[in-house]
Amino acid sequence: MTQPAEVSRPAAVARLSVPLGPCPGPGNSPGWECSNVQLGQTISTGCTCAATCLVPTPPARGHKVSGQRASRSLAQNGRVLVKNPHLDLMEEDVLYHLDLGTKTHNLPAMFGDIKFVCVGGSPNRMRAFAQFMQRELGLAGAGEDVADICAGSDRYAMYRAGPVLSISHGMGIPSISIMLHELIKLLHHAKCRDVTIIRIGTSGGLGIEAGSVVITDTAVDSSFQPRFEQVVLGDVVVRSTELDKDLAEELLACSRDIPDFPTLIGHTMCTYDFYEGQGRLDGALCSFSSEKKLEYLRRAYDAGVRNIEMESTAFAALCGLCGLKAAVVCVALLDRLEGDQIRASHEVLWEYQQRPQRLIAAFIRKRLGLCPTD
Amino acid sequence: MTQPAEVSRPAAVARLSVPLGPCPGPGNSPGWECSNVQLGQTISTGCTCAATCLVPTPPARGHKVSGQRASRSLAQNGRVLVKNPHLDLMEEDVLYHLDLGTKTHNLPAMFGDIKFVCVGGSPNRMRAFAQFMQRELGLAGAGEDVADICAGSDRYAMYRAGPVLSISHGMGIPSISIMLHELIKLLHHAKCRDVTIIRIGTSGGLGIEAGSVVITDTAVDSSFQPRFEQVVLGDVVVRSTELDKDLAEELLACSRDIPDFPTLIGHTMCTYDFYEGQGRLDGALCSFSSEKKLEYLRRAYDAGVRNIEMESTAFAALCGLCGLKAAVVCVALLDRLEGDQIRASHEVLWEYQQRPQRLIAAFIRKRLGLCPTD
Repeated sequence: MTQPAEVSRPAAVARLSVPLGPCPGPGNSPGWECSNVQLGQTISTGCTCAATCLVPTPPARGHKVSGQRASRSLAQNGRVLVKNPHLDLMEEDVLYHLDLGTKTHNLPAMFGDIKFVCVGGSPNRMRAFAQFMQRELGLAGAGEDVADICAGSDRYAMYRAGPVLSISHGMGIPSISIMLHELIKLLHHAKCRDVTIIRIGTSGGLGIEAGSVVITDTAVDSSFQPRFEQVVLGDVVVRSTELDKDLAEELLACSRDIPDFPTLIGHTMCTYDFYEGQGRLDGALCSFSSEKKLEYLRRAYDAGVRNIEMESTAFAALCGLCGLKAAVVCVALLDRLEGDQIRASHEVLWEYQQRPQRLIAAFIRKRLGLCPTD
Repeated sequence: MTQPAEVSRPAAVARLSVPLGPCPGPGNSPGWECSNVQLGQTISTGCTCAATCLVPTPPARGHKVSGQRASRSLAQNGRVLVKNPHLDLMEEDVLYHLDLGTKTHNLPAMFGDIKFVCVGGSPNRMRAFAQFMQRELGLAGAGEDVADICAGSDRYAMYRAGPVLSISHGMGIPSISIMLHELIKLLHHAKCRDVTIIRIGTSGGLGIEAGSVVITDTAVDSSFQPRFEQVVLGDVVVRSTELDKDLAEELLACSRDIPDFPTLIGHTMCTYDFYEGQGRLDGALCSFSSEKKLEYLRRAYDAGVRNIEMESTAFAALCGLCGLKAAVVCVALLDRLEGDQIRASHEVLWEYQQRPQRLIAAFIRKRLGLCPTD
């Protein structure tokens, strides 16, 4: 089994542009540093891989350069991986923001049969999705209200519909990260196997029609690079943001049965800010012109970006490291090349937000053998 | 009137450590770059200030170095500043995540008399705070439920109690940033004057008793530096995270009338992540030892950090740039030098979370002349 890589460097020191290239093999050629090291190992580990690695250009003097591996974790026997030796030493694990815990709840009984986890920003939308899935899967109680499993906390909302868990994550990388850490521990404690996780969200489109659904092949940062920078004890580690390619293709195949909205595969740009960070002209602060904005967005488009949101890089990185097959499926609420403000009516926006849900419902029904024609 | 400064550089290129030093004056001495430039200006602007600036060490070759000014914006006649020339050209401003807008709502009538804005992560807590303030201010309807002004959106919740607005912001910098951009535009459209904004939150303490209330003097990042890095069109700009010192002292003075819990002034560290970013041993991923964690937290303590949370740097930066007098007042739910998990009972945690609310209520009552003894 291979391990995903991360290499640390001090925060706020040199960052160099690091294009992807084939790894030069053991010993590392001059100017290269292979990143095929285990979590917590240092970059001095000799390379024995044939993976695609990041190449520092130009070579840094006096600074470590972060690397990133192309391949992802494989879960052991389909189990969700936690990579934290301290967890075994804890008598109790309180999943504080979910209002769940290993001593207060029988997590294997509550969640052991979960096979699909769907996450999205809005609690109302994720409740509606659980209700929708109850109907789609023909479950008892379909049409009735669903109970919020995390009702004791208002940080996140969690619902289930058969083997499907539906959880809200709020907005932005820090918010989804807290939820994912606790969700992954939950799935681990519950001894779940073969779990597929999908983010169903909203986004701004780039050069695509409003209402289009984008299946992410690669999540990229604001420099259009496939990486997620995580600070650990003040040092920055760089993580891969690859998503499961087979899963993306499987979702695209499902979309062909839903002809009433366009679905495509593309890169998704993930930012830390909705206004200045996404080049909007309508925030409380804006120091750039319309021309500069469009120049930036067009560069993103040329780099393969088809939509912009605020969670995908962290989602891809964390799920990948923990052996979860992950996908990101977002509807575009507008085309950012045409404007910044979301002005569509509530009804139109509501229908747009159904689209990723309909696609994921079709996918889950297919996986569960509930579709008569395959 | 002075303007706050920010200087851009390409993202993901050289970052150098930038200690504070006195500005060398017009012309900029070799190896120095004064950052006393207006929003959107370039660093080539000659220096005419006597402010404290950031000094690049060693001088970068081929890269711009970010700077940061010590002084903050002063609002014009107490008005809330927006720094975006494009807003004047917009026929309508839809505050999408608040479900409010300039054409759909009479914002001056709804909000023109607001003098205090209190923000916090949890929607339930901010509703409870509005109800508490209704009682504290002796308002009609005290004890009854309060209406969520943003009920059409589940991204944030907003309540009012007389001149006090109470708003939730979710968790993390991206989430609070979206809310603040729209809140600041709301206050601007509503023509509010002399607004004080206070974040009342929860945090992890550092070397302080659980239940202590920390009034932030300076918000610092994970390297203990008083700066906030904002990506704008792919470039990083560095912003000051200073808070209003007089307001912090005024709040500390108020705390002396509430002797049943400790209140102190200290630095607050703001991170992008709750688990690895704050050195917790109990996340889904952890690659470091207990010793390394404690070493990092002790370094933070030695740098003056007394609590850790996830919003203060962005809050300080954005409010400062827009002329809002701002404070951060957080209760510590635990002492991170003693553990990572929040294990106190719901009742104890509930009482802890009342503490910043009680302090802010005392402050607002005093400001409004509702306290018989001053």
